Amino acid sequence: MTRIEKIELIRLLSNYVTESRFAKMQDVLSRRTRYLTLVMEDIYQAQNASAVLRSCECFGIQDVHIIENRNEYQVNPDVALGANKWLSLHKYSTEDHNTRNCLLNLKHQGYRLIATTPHKDDCLLEELPLNQKTALLFGTEMKGLSEEAIGMADGFMKIPMSGFTESFNISVSAAICLYHLAPKIKNEVNNWQLTEDEQADIMLEWLMGSVKNARALIR
Amino acid sequence: MTRIEKIELIRLLSNYVTESRFAKMQDVLSRRTRYLTLVMEDIYQAQNASAVLRSCECFGIQDVHIIENRNEYQVNPDVALGANKWLSLHKYSTEDHNTRNCLLNLKHQGYRLIATTPHKDDCLLEELPLNQKTALLFGTEMKGLSEEAIGMADGFMKIPMSGFTESFNISVSAAICLYHLAPKIKNEVNNWQLTEDEQADIMLEWLMGSVKNARALIR
Repeated sequence: MTRIEKIELIRLLSNYVTESRFAKMQDVLSRRTRYLTLVMEDIYQAQNASAVLRSCECFGIQDVHIIENRNEYQVNPDVALGANKWLSLHKYSTEDHNTRNCLLNLKHQGYRLIATTPHKDDCLLEELPLNQKTALLFGTEMKGLSEEAIGMADGFMKIPMSGFTESFNISVSAAICLYHLAPKIKNEVNNWQLTEDEQADIMLEWLMGSVKNARALIR
Repeated sequence: MTRIEKIELIRLLSNYVTESRFAKMQDVLSRRTRYLTLVMEDIYQAQNASAVLRSCECFGIQDVHIIENRNEYQVNPDVALGANKWLSLHKYSTEDHNTRNCLLNLKHQGYRLIATTPHKDDCLLEELPLNQKTALLFGTEMKGLSEEAIGMADGFMKIPMSGFTESFNISVSAAICLYHLAPKIKNEVNNWQLTEDEQADIMLEWLMGSVKNARALIR
């Protein structure tokens, strides 16, 4: 589909949502970023995965990468509150080497892979340089990231802590990183926004999901 | 027990933990604060309550106030990771007016009550003044704070968001507030630390919980 066709479709479908709804969509879209993305490796508690999606949506992170090696990722609707509907979820579950495929894919796209772990302290969250597109890697609740993910990471980051407990809950850890990094990227990075093409693609998806019988209307 | 007696007991019990463990306890204690505290009203998911306790422990918040009107607060040990052992938990569950009792108690102690809610925007998290001891109020997962808690609050605060989803998960919301406010208090407030008396009381509790047969030793 050409860009002009997409824009025509968006114009067509936008007539079937209220003006304020469409304005909200445009506003949210203008604040979305792919400069920062998040990878969840084998998260098995639906509550955690869902809370992470909700935080990504709230902080304007468009892409979430979900690796399913042993655990099938599940959404708890009471926790996600529909956040997944507005995100681009990329799943890696059909191949033998899901972790490797996901991380290589991100590297090829120019992402620096930053593993979050309380056990290595290359840098604190506040010190993370933002001169490159960044993917934050989060591992399972009890064991953390796999050796493969640790081996492929370009750097390690931890959140400063001052208690006995050595790590945060995964959904908490992800949210703190996003709370700190998302506004910082918008202040410090020039090209943090989605391109016009990306915005058109996503707007079309959102409208297709929001307008009843969108496919029939398009035909 | 006089302060001198407490200090003697601490000296006695400290012989039964390793030197590095005792040093860790002293270090953690020196970073604890009561200037900021957290109130959970009727949180019913053990996973959320437990993640909140873990975040408080990690950020050096000593006191957590737990109101149980309809829901009995429960800890999920896989999520809390023992954090509750290092905190001073204050429960309000036996009276008819648990919310009122808890909040009046905090007001009498000089706390400003700040309700966290996405629906009122007195101020954003980043703008919250820290010129007074502050208690952050968090309500249930689906309905938020009770009318009584909202009515007794001295102010409302929200975390800035840029998506469609209108609120964060409760454990995420609490963690973001603590991540932002705990270091800020330590930078901006003079008397954020526990008093020597408070430190002695808590150290004694920690040692009593850490040393086998502590009571027998003391006798």
